[in-house]
Amino acid sequence: MSSNPKPLAESEEEQQQLVTPWEVSAKQGGKIDYDKLIDQFGCQRLDQSLIDRVQRLTNRPPHVFLRRGVFFAHRDFNDILDAYERGDKFYLYTGRGPSSEALHLGHLVPFMFTKYLQDAFKVPLVIQLTDDEKCMWKNLSVEESQRLARENAKDIIACGFDISRTFIFSDFDFVGGAFYRNMVKVSKCVTCNKVVGIFGFTGEDHIGKYSFPPVQAVPSFPSSFPHLFSGKENLRCLIPCAIDQDPYFRMTRDVAPRIGYNKPSLIESTFFPALQGETGKMNASDPNSAIYVTDTATNIKNKINKYAFSGGQDTIENQRKFGANIEVDIPIKYLGFFLDDDAELEHISTEYGAGRMLTGEVKKRLIEVLTELVERHRRARAAVTDERIPLAISLGVKLLQVETLFAVATLRLGTLNQKDPHSEKVKRFLQLFRDGGRVLGVASDGETQ
Amino acid sequence: MSSNPKPLAESEEEQQQLVTPWEVSAKQGGKIDYDKLIDQFGCQRLDQSLIDRVQRLTNRPPHVFLRRGVFFAHRDFNDILDAYERGDKFYLYTGRGPSSEALHLGHLVPFMFTKYLQDAFKVPLVIQLTDDEKCMWKNLSVEESQRLARENAKDIIACGFDISRTFIFSDFDFVGGAFYRNMVKVSKCVTCNKVVGIFGFTGEDHIGKYSFPPVQAVPSFPSSFPHLFSGKENLRCLIPCAIDQDPYFRMTRDVAPRIGYNKPSLIESTFFPALQGETGKMNASDPNSAIYVTDTATNIKNKINKYAFSGGQDTIENQRKFGANIEVDIPIKYLGFFLDDDAELEHISTEYGAGRMLTGEVKKRLIEVLTELVERHRRARAAVTDERIPLAISLGVKLLQVETLFAVATLRLGTLNQKDPHSEKVKRFLQLFRDGGRVLGVASDGETQ
Repeated sequence: MSSNPKPLAESEEEQQQLVTPWEVSAKQGGKIDYDKLIDQFGCQRLDQSLIDRVQRLTNRPPHVFLRRGVFFAHRDFNDILDAYERGDKFYLYTGRGPSSEALHLGHLVPFMFTKYLQDAFKVPLVIQLTDDEKCMWKNLSVEESQRLARENAKDIIACGFDISRTFIFSDFDFVGGAFYRNMVKVSKCVTCNKVVGIFGFTGEDHIGKYSFPPVQAVPSFPSSFPHLFSGKENLRCLIPCAIDQDPYFRMTRDVAPRIGYNKPSLIESTFFPALQGETGKMNASDPNSAIYVTDTATNIKNKINKYAFSGGQDTIENQRKFGANIEVDIPIKYLGFFLDDDAELEHISTEYGAGRMLTGEVKKRLIEVLTELVERHRRARAAVTDERIPLAISLGVKLLQVETLFAVATLRLGTLNQKDPHSEKVKRFLQLFRDGGRVLGVASDGETQ
Repeated sequence: MSSNPKPLAESEEEQQQLVTPWEVSAKQGGKIDYDKLIDQFGCQRLDQSLIDRVQRLTNRPPHVFLRRGVFFAHRDFNDILDAYERGDKFYLYTGRGPSSEALHLGHLVPFMFTKYLQDAFKVPLVIQLTDDEKCMWKNLSVEESQRLARENAKDIIACGFDISRTFIFSDFDFVGGAFYRNMVKVSKCVTCNKVVGIFGFTGEDHIGKYSFPPVQAVPSFPSSFPHLFSGKENLRCLIPCAIDQDPYFRMTRDVAPRIGYNKPSLIESTFFPALQGETGKMNASDPNSAIYVTDTATNIKNKINKYAFSGGQDTIENQRKFGANIEVDIPIKYLGFFLDDDAELEHISTEYGAGRMLTGEVKKRLIEVLTELVERHRRARAAVTDERIPLAISLGVKLLQVETLFAVATLRLGTLNQKDPHSEKVKRFLQLFRDGGRVLGVASDGETQ
């Protein structure tokens, strides 16, 4: 469809670095050039003054991902802070495409950061599980995509969100009603040529791909969630995500004013590097490229010792003499994400770079940090039982309107059938509404608070 | 996007006759060549033996639209009759794009025929109101499209369907859940090039158009309606429609076996001619090209006397001498649709063609027939009050499962808000379900039968 060949120079440049929602690759053998990405996408760098402002407004230290530049770019984040300073609330929107059974550490990054933002600003959060997208892109069955969405939801819930302010939904369950009406409004404003330009689809791609961008766009608009935001259609939206998702939201921001909605703001992260080195995102098809939240302590130890790319010298003598190249050292990078103590990180980096620490010692510290993180996650996930999860997903919101019942019920039934033991809970839940009255809050076990 | 120019011969042919879901035009000054259309689309002619078979199976005279070739083409209609003869049921699916306030006589044709089929075979019926399509193609607001859908629903209900076997839904209300999951399944099987080939979209068309064909496709599959057809996923579907809708269902039939579903069967009509002559469908933007169900007796009389194209001679003397050309005479065509009495129609045609009847006499009889039809429709429509219609739309089905509650509730809430007086009815309706029990039938006033 884009039959015009691109100018050679641009085409060469694209071969060097490619960042789309489905493919991330640095130029040959190199790292992603994030400065170039900011220029190319037209977003803004998240500078120190913004980070200081976040600290001031939230009255707490900025998250390690802010302090260390993991979240490094934004679009109109200052508008969100302006609004917050005026006393206006906003809401957070993030998501996940459920394409694998277990999440790896890179998948946790946006959720850990979103949890921090939710805690710091005390705002509602919607989490979209794009099971429809993965069904179409990864050629999974509908049922398998939905199963993965449910499994991934457990890992997301385990990140510790404020369940009274969080709404997690699967597209296969939730698309419809106000959400679908917004999809149609967005679709009307985006030509085929436009999505081809943004996403690089071809004529041989199926129309599901052409249909999907509005699905990811509309959670940016509060009117897509009448059960949450009825009467608050002007609420601003902040989207924490990895920068490869930027194309969806460029499109969304382009459309928003044309349909009378606010543009969502974004706060965007770098990619979490593979164990083998920082040349892009991790490769889901290679289990040894990442630490998974299901890895045992032994797995973690072996993977880091065997695969984590080291910037240290090849012999102890050389290491003592020349020190490590910490710019390419994966254990240092990983500690940069997950070791909270700035002083300790600084100490390790200095000592290791100067040759006074060895790779083995740095890896040992990383193994401790990750083992603890994964163990903590495992315990939290274990508490999210099959029994609790559908209610946790669907009822983790203040229920203020009778409409909610139907959104919730529809959502629930997407995952249930008549013979499912949960349908007893639905019936119990229905009873709460039998007089059509208001229910101010429902705990995750289905009882009113 | 279809950058290859078509061979000249084919392109010339297309200029002569164009039939798409959005445009119907005969070759210059001529009529639609339906034989050519059957060849071009690859459907089959509905022959006398099939009509005789319908008569035998239903034990009643075939509908006037069958006897007189209004429904003239089909796809696998014989499979439906085979199944029926074996004692298997099927269901009917038809629809309407709500783009105008009032329906004209041409709009009624598929609904009148569908009512006959429902009565004759005693089968369930789903009616899709594609308000999403019209919002996108006609650039109507979401709210205006939904309003037109509700208005049109009243005219459809007035056609007298068996409300206990009929489910009328608007896409804006109903898309979601199993319906949306089927949309994704279909979308995965249709490339962009394919819809460009079938529907002629261009790169400058918006992606809503590319997304829509699966929405019209999936009512062909019983699994899109779990509240109606749960456990009957192999039920066959018969679609009565005008032949301009064939492209949607060619696509649907192509996809069906690839996703494990039966191909729908079709029974397809010619177009209802404009008052000004038989060169295509009526032009919605010219109110004088059609008789509307809202026209008064005076309107009808004036329109027919003034605009109905006559095949009669220009003077009484010439008419007596040469007779009328009944092949191009619109009053005769219209009587062919709506005058049930075969003997009377035969008599009028013969006398008029032989010059023993004058145009004025034929028009007078047509005015009587249409005035009565429109008056009957008006009375039936008046009985469909605003108060009754949402329940008639959503509850006109046997409610066999608790799931139904949620489909119905979702549907209802698409058209309601908190302040709507109907929400009282929803609450009452919910009470019926408070013990989670089965409800075997709900009448259109919301009470259990």
